[in-house]
Amino acid sequence: MSETLLSSRNLAFELYEVLDAEGLTQRERFAEHNRETFDAAIGTARSIAEKYFAPHNRKGDENEPRYEDGQARLIPEVKPAVDAFLEAGFLNAARSFEAGGMQLPTLLSQACFAHFQAANAATTSYPFLTMGAANLIESFGTQEQKQRFLQPMIDGRFFGTMALTEPHAGSSLADIRTRAKPAADGSYRLKGNKIFISGGDHPLSENIVHMVLAKLPDAPPGVKGISLFIVPKFLVNDDGSLGPRNDVLLAGLFHKMGWRGTTSTALNFGDNGHCVGYLVGQPHQGLSYMFQMMNEARIGVGMGAVMLGYAGYLYSLEYARERPQGRLPDSKDPSTAPVSIIQHADVRRMLLTQKAYVEGAFDLGLYAARLFDDTTTLADEAERRQAHELLDLLTPIVKSWPSEFCLKANELAIQILGGHGYTREYPVEQYYRDNRLNPIHEGTHGIQSLDLLGRKLAQNGGAGLKRLIRLIAETGERARAHPSLDALRQPLEQLVSRLQSVTLGLLGDLASGKVTATLANSALYLKVFGHAVVGWRWLEQAIRAEEGLARDVAADRDFYRGKLQAARYFLTWEVPACQHELTLLEARDATCLEMQDAWF
Amino acid sequence: MSETLLSSRNLAFELYEVLDAEGLTQRERFAEHNRETFDAAIGTARSIAEKYFAPHNRKGDENEPRYEDGQARLIPEVKPAVDAFLEAGFLNAARSFEAGGMQLPTLLSQACFAHFQAANAATTSYPFLTMGAANLIESFGTQEQKQRFLQPMIDGRFFGTMALTEPHAGSSLADIRTRAKPAADGSYRLKGNKIFISGGDHPLSENIVHMVLAKLPDAPPGVKGISLFIVPKFLVNDDGSLGPRNDVLLAGLFHKMGWRGTTSTALNFGDNGHCVGYLVGQPHQGLSYMFQMMNEARIGVGMGAVMLGYAGYLYSLEYARERPQGRLPDSKDPSTAPVSIIQHADVRRMLLTQKAYVEGAFDLGLYAARLFDDTTTLADEAERRQAHELLDLLTPIVKSWPSEFCLKANELAIQILGGHGYTREYPVEQYYRDNRLNPIHEGTHGIQSLDLLGRKLAQNGGAGLKRLIRLIAETGERARAHPSLDALRQPLEQLVSRLQSVTLGLLGDLASGKVTATLANSALYLKVFGHAVVGWRWLEQAIRAEEGLARDVAADRDFYRGKLQAARYFLTWEVPACQHELTLLEARDATCLEMQDAWF
Repeated sequence: MSETLLSSRNLAFELYEVLDAEGLTQRERFAEHNRETFDAAIGTARSIAEKYFAPHNRKGDENEPRYEDGQARLIPEVKPAVDAFLEAGFLNAARSFEAGGMQLPTLLSQACFAHFQAANAATTSYPFLTMGAANLIESFGTQEQKQRFLQPMIDGRFFGTMALTEPHAGSSLADIRTRAKPAADGSYRLKGNKIFISGGDHPLSENIVHMVLAKLPDAPPGVKGISLFIVPKFLVNDDGSLGPRNDVLLAGLFHKMGWRGTTSTALNFGDNGHCVGYLVGQPHQGLSYMFQMMNEARIGVGMGAVMLGYAGYLYSLEYARERPQGRLPDSKDPSTAPVSIIQHADVRRMLLTQKAYVEGAFDLGLYAARLFDDTTTLADEAERRQAHELLDLLTPIVKSWPSEFCLKANELAIQILGGHGYTREYPVEQYYRDNRLNPIHEGTHGIQSLDLLGRKLAQNGGAGLKRLIRLIAETGERARAHPSLDALRQPLEQLVSRLQSVTLGLLGDLASGKVTATLANSALYLKVFGHAVVGWRWLEQAIRAEEGLARDVAADRDFYRGKLQAARYFLTWEVPACQHELTLLEARDATCLEMQDAWF
Repeated sequence: MSETLLSSRNLAFELYEVLDAEGLTQRERFAEHNRETFDAAIGTARSIAEKYFAPHNRKGDENEPRYEDGQARLIPEVKPAVDAFLEAGFLNAARSFEAGGMQLPTLLSQACFAHFQAANAATTSYPFLTMGAANLIESFGTQEQKQRFLQPMIDGRFFGTMALTEPHAGSSLADIRTRAKPAADGSYRLKGNKIFISGGDHPLSENIVHMVLAKLPDAPPGVKGISLFIVPKFLVNDDGSLGPRNDVLLAGLFHKMGWRGTTSTALNFGDNGHCVGYLVGQPHQGLSYMFQMMNEARIGVGMGAVMLGYAGYLYSLEYARERPQGRLPDSKDPSTAPVSIIQHADVRRMLLTQKAYVEGAFDLGLYAARLFDDTTTLADEAERRQAHELLDLLTPIVKSWPSEFCLKANELAIQILGGHGYTREYPVEQYYRDNRLNPIHEGTHGIQSLDLLGRKLAQNGGAGLKRLIRLIAETGERARAHPSLDALRQPLEQLVSRLQSVTLGLLGDLASGKVTATLANSALYLKVFGHAVVGWRWLEQAIRAEEGLARDVAADRDFYRGKLQAARYFLTWEVPACQHELTLLEARDATCLEMQDAWF
């Protein structure tokens, strides 16, 4: 039977041949686990995703949440799916045993979660947002806040949201206007409007816990004056029972291009003057708290983009195998039977490109999850810090690269299905529409590029960058043991070497104060850096594939050959093409910067 | 007031500074015309498009045609729009005065039509399809067929469709199964099923004339056995009145990603055994007739893709000018006012890229229309033939390049609007969804690439290619008069020179029988060839802009500077990047060809 969410063989390759998931069980935190418990969790995730999430993916798209009497209504299939997810424990997969979790490595919890993201991006958002909100309270909340709000989230009774964006400010959080005034009882009264709040209302849980960014009366201007508040939909009494409705009004729903099953809401806080909120952590530290949670959230967004790409790839692959049409150019005889379209070289190109994008990004996302585990469970503090520095550096890539290239994969999946792909009778056009959100939310593509070039590269004296360069060089060294990989290794080495020198130059310009000019082409830099990273991950996969081939297991041969071919595609078709972007960066090309408003 | 469909200044630049529309009035056929009549036609098109087409563009998307009692129902706004279009004479804009037309050059009729395509792609399809069907009958029908079917189409009473695709065959027309049996009265009885027939049913006209591809009983296999038939929805009596309903059944409607306002139908011909059709032209020549009309149709499809890109570009430009958000990287002081987002270099990059794609493709489409006029109205027969050869060669580019790059433009427009762009409250996401059809219909991207590399290049001994190379060289020569254009000219010359040698090599391989291997990377070839052609058109525009600047008219200065900057973007950012594709083509890279089904 063909797989529709992801390739189990490829997941096993990632976990056990590339990323050494079993090695994690040597660490104290994961000592109770082994490959069997990992595989059992994955099997459960897959079966719930297939049984409860995938079947209503299209229905959720066709039946958007409706706004009725101030509330958002969903199709009935969402709740049983989310309930099954909760019951199986996936909300707390990475949480400790004592906290009611499975104490799985993040690598494994992401691998499990990926199945839901592939099956139904929209329904999966509700637990995803809840996890993010819960992690914030867990990290920065008081014991009392944890008792009152976090525990019911862990128990699956309360859901959560992240309420950042405001209509006039968009991505510019420095300019938010939502205010929080201290009240006599130590809580706060909030007033303001938020938009694009995913999961901002729904009937799936007893309560919704909004994590809201707002400014205190004495807040300094800009991002240094933003505080974080818990604002529940219903107040919670001391005994944990629900109190009265808080002054949080669902002002309306947004109607989106895709991802339609997730409510995207406009919320008004404090229209009636009594919106109660609770300060999380210290005043004015809200944005730094958000940023500390962002690595994990952005891995999640990146993996979401990967999995929509993956689902589209697998669907178009199956279609190409089954659909007979046309003949090969050198055997046009119309009396012969048509071939399946996978026989056409251009269809194979579109499949191989998808495979390279999707499996490259899948590896990258899981690599980042593994790195996240290193930041929390490596024994040595210096090593944990190193892992953190590298993860910080890679986060903009982990978020943005799949959002761009797995979206391209979706476009190719539509093209392979042709006219059918353009109809809503097939799933691929929805994958594209759903995925189109990913380059926008959780920091747009442009913001990721500024984060990388303007902040992450130079962080900690460039420690993350140096480590990355060293790791790439080590992979290159190991690749030298396989002469068949020379043609794959060399373009990567050429790119990385030149990228290093371009990077040094750009950082020098930044240090000397040429900020706007240097950041002007940050999008080009993001593209090249991302291709270098994914190229490295593909070379790593290629080495593992060579090692796999050497074991000479007949059933695995095709799998490894496919890996090598996808690596070849990426490293010889895509990686060398980045040289031109480097030329533009080297020349400090000012074509876009110099363009004037009046000239358009 | 800002323009929403296209820039009138840019259209005037194309018509009167680049493409010498006034020169056409020296030709006998267009002697009655002058710049005033041209501008009057354009003004009328613009005002009808703005008044009748644009206002229901979103409504048509949200209210797809419904299938009721075997008929397709549309929203009420479509008919008045189409009626206004017909009344103003745009259906017959290029037709002769005697035939009831405006006898405009195709260049001008396309320029007029472009306004409707930008305003409402879906509603515009109905007259577009009718024009295509009418042209087929005009070129290949008998006098009696013209009297009975063409005249009512010209009069706007009958509409038309093109009925080619069948469920099992898709793009592989060689494999169609619809059959046509001769009847005693000289007509035929058809039996078969067609899908994706745009405009296959609607209540806009008294009758619908389907141009159907089918096979006669004695048909040779493959594309050489396809004949063309007129199959009306209602039979037409000798006096021109409508007879009984023909045996053409609307089997259902397809529900598409975009372009939703146009009915996409499944039609069953002859379910009840009495579907009457009339052979057009000679038996077995149907496909060659279709191909002869294809240049015009594909210019139309290409221009449709351009105009969706254009509408998105103008919308996102206006948005970027009006939306304040964030601050520039070197002046982050939060107490200063936010800047409009057009001030951010990365937003300017996305706008400049759109401008380069959209205005480059707009020029290309109009250039092709001008060439079409040359094929029919140049005095010298050899010159007409030359124009035809060049147009044949360029047609795959004119169709596919805008379908790919103006679609990318739409993606950038969404990105500029961010979260808002992703909602259906703004028009840009619909432009993307509408435009996504264009790389699929009228010959997919892959088919265009095979048409170019496998057929068009070598046609007529390569006459079209030689002429194109000569024209590009002439533009390069003229560019030398402007030293400021050296940096733009050189990358184009480098690309074209290497492309020539790669082309010779590939044609040699084809001639020596390595067909499948040589065509395997046809998509790369299409990309490079397209960029060379559009690069040439941009260099041409840049020359005209330099000439315009030299005239030193204050009001025009910004316009020409913008042209030069967009040319600079395309020729220095995009054109040199094609060198890597040439490297792959030169190496006869077999990465995709060698990929095996079992390896995926």
